[in-house]
Amino acid sequence: MLDDLRHAAARRMAGRASARLQLACKRLLSEGAELNGMGAASEIIDRIEDLDDEQLDRFFGWMATALGPDPAAVLRAAQAYAQEPSAAHQITLTAAAAPPRQELLRRMNRRPGGTAAVLRLRRALLARLRERPEHAGQWAAIEADLLHLLTSWFNPGFLQLRRVDWNSPAQFLEKIIHHEAVHAIDGWDDLRRRLLPDRRCFAFVHPQLSDEPLIFVEVALVPEMPAAIAPLIEKGSLPLPPDRFRVAAFYSISNCEPGLRGVSLGNFLIKTVAVQLQRELPQLKRFCTLSPIPGFAPWLLQRPDFASLPGIRRAAVPSLQAAHERLLALTGGELQALQGAALHARLGAEDDQALVRLAAAYLAYASPTPAGDAVARFHLDNGARLERLNLRGNLSPRGLKQSFGVMVNYLYDLDKVEASHDRFRAGEVVRSRELAALL
Amino acid sequence: MLDDLRHAAARRMAGRASARLQLACKRLLSEGAELNGMGAASEIIDRIEDLDDEQLDRFFGWMATALGPDPAAVLRAAQAYAQEPSAAHQITLTAAAAPPRQELLRRMNRRPGGTAAVLRLRRALLARLRERPEHAGQWAAIEADLLHLLTSWFNPGFLQLRRVDWNSPAQFLEKIIHHEAVHAIDGWDDLRRRLLPDRRCFAFVHPQLSDEPLIFVEVALVPEMPAAIAPLIEKGSLPLPPDRFRVAAFYSISNCEPGLRGVSLGNFLIKTVAVQLQRELPQLKRFCTLSPIPGFAPWLLQRPDFASLPGIRRAAVPSLQAAHERLLALTGGELQALQGAALHARLGAEDDQALVRLAAAYLAYASPTPAGDAVARFHLDNGARLERLNLRGNLSPRGLKQSFGVMVNYLYDLDKVEASHDRFRAGEVVRSRELAALL
Amino acid sequence: MLDDLRHAAARRMAGRASARLQLACKRLLSEGAELNGMGAASEIIDRIEDLDDEQLDRFFGWMATALGPDPAAVLRAAQAYAQEPSAAHQITLTAAAAPPRQELLRRMNRRPGGTAAVLRLRRALLARLRERPEHAGQWAAIEADLLHLLTSWFNPGFLQLRRVDWNSPAQFLEKIIHHEAVHAIDGWDDLRRRLLPDRRCFAFVHPQLSDEPLIFVEVALVPEMPAAIAPLIEKGSLPLPPDRFRVAAFYSISNCEPGLRGVSLGNFLIKTVAVQLQRELPQLKRFCTLSPIPGFAPWLLQRPDFASLPGIRRAAVPSLQAAHERLLALTGGELQALQGAALHARLGAEDDQALVRLAAAYLAYASPTPAGDAVARFHLDNGARLERLNLRGNLSPRGLKQSFGVMVNYLYDLDKVEASHDRFRAGEVVRSRELAALL
Amino acid sequence: MLDDLRHAAARRMAGRASARLQLACKRLLSEGAELNGMGAASEIIDRIEDLDDEQLDRFFGWMATALGPDPAAVLRAAQAYAQEPSAAHQITLTAAAAPPRQELLRRMNRRPGGTAAVLRLRRALLARLRERPEHAGQWAAIEADLLHLLTSWFNPGFLQLRRVDWNSPAQFLEKIIHHEAVHAIDGWDDLRRRLLPDRRCFAFVHPQLSDEPLIFVEVALVPEMPAAIAPLIEKGSLPLPPDRFRVAAFYSISNCEPGLRGVSLGNFLIKTVAVQLQRELPQLKRFCTLSPIPGFAPWLLQRPDFASLPGIRRAAVPSLQAAHERLLALTGGELQALQGAALHARLGAEDDQALVRLAAAYLAYASPTPAGDAVARFHLDNGARLERLNLRGNLSPRGLKQSFGVMVNYLYDLDKVEASHDRFRAGEVVRSRELAALL
Repeated sequence: MLDDLRHAAARRMAGRASARLQLACKRLLSEGAELNGMGAASEIIDRIEDLDDEQLDRFFGWMATALGPDPAAVLRAAQAYAQEPSAAHQITLTAAAAPPRQELLRRMNRRPGGTAAVLRLRRALLARLRERPEHAGQWAAIEADLLHLLTSWFNPGFLQLRRVDWNSPAQFLEKIIHHEAVHAIDGWDDLRRRLLPDRRCFAFVHPQLSDEPLIFVEVALVPEMPAAIAPLIEKGSLPLPPDRFRVAAFYSISNCEPGLRGVSLGNFLIKTVAVQLQRELPQLKRFCTLSPIPGFAPWLLQRPDFASLPGIRRAAVPSLQAAHERLLALTGGELQALQGAALHARLGAEDDQALVRLAAAYLAYASPTPAGDAVARFHLDNGARLERLNLRGNLSPRGLKQSFGVMVNYLYDLDKVEASHDRFRAGEVVRSRELAALL
Repeated sequence: MLDDLRHAAARRMAGRASARLQLACKRLLSEGAELNGMGAASEIIDRIEDLDDEQLDRFFGWMATALGPDPAAVLRAAQAYAQEPSAAHQITLTAAAAPPRQELLRRMNRRPGGTAAVLRLRRALLARLRERPEHAGQWAAIEADLLHLLTSWFNPGFLQLRRVDWNSPAQFLEKIIHHEAVHAIDGWDDLRRRLLPDRRCFAFVHPQLSDEPLIFVEVALVPEMPAAIAPLIEKGSLPLPPDRFRVAAFYSISNCEPGLRGVSLGNFLIKTVAVQLQRELPQLKRFCTLSPIPGFAPWLLQRPDFASLPGIRRAAVPSLQAAHERLLALTGGELQALQGAALHARLGAEDDQALVRLAAAYLAYASPTPAGDAVARFHLDNGARLERLNLRGNLSPRGLKQSFGVMVNYLYDLDKVEASHDRFRAGEVVRSRELAALL
Repeated sequence: MLDDLRHAAARRMAGRASARLQLACKRLLSEGAELNGMGAASEIIDRIEDLDDEQLDRFFGWMATALGPDPAAVLRAAQAYAQEPSAAHQITLTAAAAPPRQELLRRMNRRPGGTAAVLRLRRALLARLRERPEHAGQWAAIEADLLHLLTSWFNPGFLQLRRVDWNSPAQFLEKIIHHEAVHAIDGWDDLRRRLLPDRRCFAFVHPQLSDEPLIFVEVALVPEMPAAIAPLIEKGSLPLPPDRFRVAAFYSISNCEPGLRGVSLGNFLIKTVAVQLQRELPQLKRFCTLSPIPGFAPWLLQRPDFASLPGIRRAAVPSLQAAHERLLALTGGELQALQGAALHARLGAEDDQALVRLAAAYLAYASPTPAGDAVARFHLDNGARLERLNLRGNLSPRGLKQSFGVMVNYLYDLDKVEASHDRFRAGEVVRSRELAALL
Repeated sequence: MLDDLRHAAARRMAGRASARLQLACKRLLSEGAELNGMGAASEIIDRIEDLDDEQLDRFFGWMATALGPDPAAVLRAAQAYAQEPSAAHQITLTAAAAPPRQELLRRMNRRPGGTAAVLRLRRALLARLRERPEHAGQWAAIEADLLHLLTSWFNPGFLQLRRVDWNSPAQFLEKIIHHEAVHAIDGWDDLRRRLLPDRRCFAFVHPQLSDEPLIFVEVALVPEMPAAIAPLIEKGSLPLPPDRFRVAAFYSISNCEPGLRGVSLGNFLIKTVAVQLQRELPQLKRFCTLSPIPGFAPWLLQRPDFASLPGIRRAAVPSLQAAHERLLALTGGELQALQGAALHARLGAEDDQALVRLAAAYLAYASPTPAGDAVARFHLDNGARLERLNLRGNLSPRGLKQSFGVMVNYLYDLDKVEASHDRFRAGEVVRSRELAALL
């Protein structure tokens, strides 16, 4: 009973904090606050920081329901516009359909620290949605508005490309170490190796948040398209002299700002970096990636039905089935054994062949579907070509777990990315001859 | 006949150029071009540059009609949302109501040089509208979208305040000279005086256009609230030592980018500068303007009906009429004679009083209406207070012409701007005691 | 008599000011002040500023006599070193021979503002020497020490080359306008033309005085070696596109800091700029000057004895005499008439030839002697080659006055400057074939 | 025998390399090379890099003997100057006494990379002298010239003070970690703590070597004069809020460039930093150090004769002897046992007192002599005051070894440093009342 009382008190408190915040929001949305309203905006920014989970839930609930467009007004405007699609009607319609929520966020963004506050708000929203997925339906409108606005504010045209090297501020580098998500950086010495002259790192920063990398990519300058990750991230390796650079291999790309989830930055980053490297180093002949295939092992372990892969030729199915069975036989029906280094080390040439063929089919046929490999979908949608599979690309526990050690190169031919992208959207995975032969 | 043929040929050419441009726009709007589509965007940016007037008209016509939202789709979405205002329906509605035109401009903006191109496009639109006002109705939707997007992109939160001084790049200063619209800068020596330590100049720049001032303000640091402009812009004057600074007087504010018309930057600029000066120079006690009243003479010459001024007390009308008649008598019924220096020099104390009273009434009563003085409306809406009238503030031909030489100080009290703004929006002009007494 | 009293009082005052300054100098030279002595140094720097002419004279007199090395100590050290030239004796000798004056200046230089103060001191010394040449003998030792130290401190290795363009700070550009000594810059518009992309300007700055150009050079990028100055400094000319740049012509070089007279910076500047331009613009094929010959007219007007020109071949003398007589005949014995535009305009082809031949002889034979043309001596000593004479190079009043309108190109071939310099020091003027033929 | 042959061959090679280098030096010293001579200078810079030990020895031998002043010429000049100390004779003398070696180094310094090359040369010289002390006599003249020139080039007036913080380039910070000589920095996390807002670090850099710290100092901002080092360098400690800063404690100062040994930078650095901190943080009331006493234990272990300490009062001797005997008794005559933590932990109050008294006597009486503690001599000569002894200041093995754990605070009172310095030079150690009482 005491608990009940406490709970009720807490709820009242939460209610009050949330009510005050709503009031500040209304003030900021009021007519004059477009230009003034510094106080209201700062209050909102400060108050949001202090909300606990329950208060946040109330606040998001209010934003979702109270700050949408007025249904009756929109309907009137839509009817008028449907009757006569004049400019005047269109303007009325656009205004009526715009959720006040967007205007609120825009006004917050106008204040010093506002952009960062909106990012924090979205981080909080995404975090709450993970914990309380039952709100997803109601809060989706907030999420849609946030994504819309952040996409506009973090427009690549407004971002700055920054070369990251050993001359960069330590606090910037510290964030690089922290956010590297693909091949973890093991402290400052490891980072240092990755910034020597035959490695490059570039980040996008936003002018208002310029001490923060938003996203960064790591590149190895090498003589040939790389087949394995270990040599690229070997701490003790000696740097290659520039006259031997031929290939720029993007081997890692990491987002730093969870509040920007869904805002496309990686594709622009890769292309911008490629253009810049080409200009600086005309000796570079190819731009490619060395990428993991995190979806491959999970897919294969689910015993996929090869015949139902979209676009697969009927004639290709039996050989995939044979490959699959070979691996099942090898592992005594326990395919996950292949995720162990011991068994992997004993693979014979035909086992290898079977594994590669299955990976090729997965990437070539499943990628255009939502169930495809996320990394593949990113690069292929970005206009890259499926270039080469590397059987022993990553024999680390993680690499074996994700894809039985297989890695893949995607090739970026800047003259062809638009066409390849269009073909990918039409359901086709553009592939090299080598891969075509394999399939 | 030959002319007709030529004309027809020109029209065909224009048609073709315009058709190619429309094609590029459609390509940029096509699904994949969100991420790729560099070519299309560059093509649009280049092509727009080359359009002649007729081609521009065609292009704007197409943008106005072809790139609006789909009336039927919006109507469906609005009906669904009216029936059940769920998040899902709201998202559908927002998407359906968003004109593809906005997305096109957003995609242009993502490219290097895109922001500048969109600004040029709006300059062209505004220029064409001046020449062809008959298009205003149709093109209003384009204009609304451009204003909406530019307001978001030139968000004060994204702008940088830059101190302009004699250490600034010459090319930046050259633009200051060129764009000063209130009290023309007569070459580099004049500018130099305006940048000595008792004068300040600040500009907003956008990170992507950082060599360009967007708007700038000039400030005089003086011992007292200034009553006349001449001493502030006197080329040969000696700088005041900093220990005598008490008042920061904003004496000129000029926009540099016609493509940003209607995007509110001036109000933020004044407040940001006031905060910065207060921090740097704690000895400053007041922040005010010394402003022209460009609407005063035109208003008075139209023989206004004082009794119909909104909010005027009935008892105040006769004294205004008397003042007016006094001036009419003085000028033999030809009030414009007062715009000449000769007559002005002969004004007696009571004539002065009459003139000041009329100016006070104009500013205090007409300002809340659209017919009010534009400068007054800017500062009052910005939360400033009507502080003091200065009869012989500007005896230059321009000053006499605009307002019979009268100038006005508006006072910025940062703690009160929000309240004053609210009162102004409610129709009230906040005024000093001195001015209240005058009325 | 009153005057005498006043004079005596002034002298006493001067004596006192000077005595206090000497005291501060002694304090700064005292043992501990190497590390501390901030006070003493600042006092000296401040006091020197305030000295009037008489006080300066006293101070310089004291510096000259009281701050030299101790004759007896030096003699002892020199004798010991002569007897046994050991390291120990050498160190003692070096220390004994070093004037305390140098140490004093070094200690001043260690303080904030010290470098600028030493420069002002030298400016004052040079100015006093102009007015009071009778002191030259005594003060020569101060001057020698100042020159020695400034040469070391304004070491080209410590200077920074700065590109000057329309993006440079206005206050820096203002100094460029002010100090241009060869072809005066007529205000900001003129300067602007000289900074367009087919003109270049570079300055040396010192890290401690970085707002000040020390010396700057102006360069025109042109298709051919220029024959006249007017087109290079024509305000209204249109810039040449970069693909037509073939020749970099140094057309003006000006010192900005009189306190650095005699410190060689110009030669390093020209060479550093040439290297930088070559790197930036590989299409440049030649580096040359277009230079005045300020010594030519004065030399010719003094009716030189051609036979005594050093190194002249006897056979060449008669033709020079004939040329001279031709010009005398043309001007009725009043050669200075040729300094007028009117007569110059009437020169015939043979008159031209006579003038050019005389100029060639002057430059080729007189330059290695102190009586030679100062500009020629600068470039030839710097390793340039005498390349081409341009009869109508500068028809401005100044050009006619200096050299009857003749200008000259010196050619910088960076691979040969060292050899040419050595030959010039040996008395030979390296010349082009064309010039050799003329002689 | 084969070895002998090899040896002879190597000697010939060394001879040749050295001969070529000498030739380049002579060329650079030749008349014209002042302005040109780029080739010669670069050749020297390159060649010196490649010399092995034997070649270096030859080269230094040659520099020592061949590049001194000409004894006969100096003697003549000294005699003339002794007879008549005129300016002309003085100039001749200065020129004659200047070793050509200095001019050679100056010309090297003029080239890009020259300053760094001269620093490397001195590092090599100092290293060779450590290995071959028998050369010291002969090479002393080179060393004297290098020190003279480097002192002039690394003039504090030419150096830039740079704040080092977590925003500094990683490569700069890496050098800080590497060169910290007093309290080693244990990796990046340790460094990070030392750069939080209540710690400061400042370095001097030279404009031509700006990626290199020359010397740096670490400062702790604390509420009271610190008595022990451990809390200041504790990695996990929380930063103090700025409103509690009262004392700036310099707890470490390290040189980074061995080639600058003997060039006084530390004293300027401390004072410059103190001035800057005082300006930034007016709440700071005291500037002091927390310093080791590395000479104390070695001095005490040698059983010093207290009566012969310079300046000691006779009456003070017995109590020092008593203190000494107490410690001897405590350690069974093996004083070094006190360098162990175990015995130290058992010290009683009177033992403490004995130890402190001995340390006080050592610092107060021995410091003015060359045998005094080096750190004490640095700070006292720099004008600091002997302020307080801290018995358990540093209980690390190193602290116990150096000084039985005792540390000392020196106080910097900027208004008194000059006077204190003068008194120190006169043999007196300025001390606090507390320390005076102890003595």
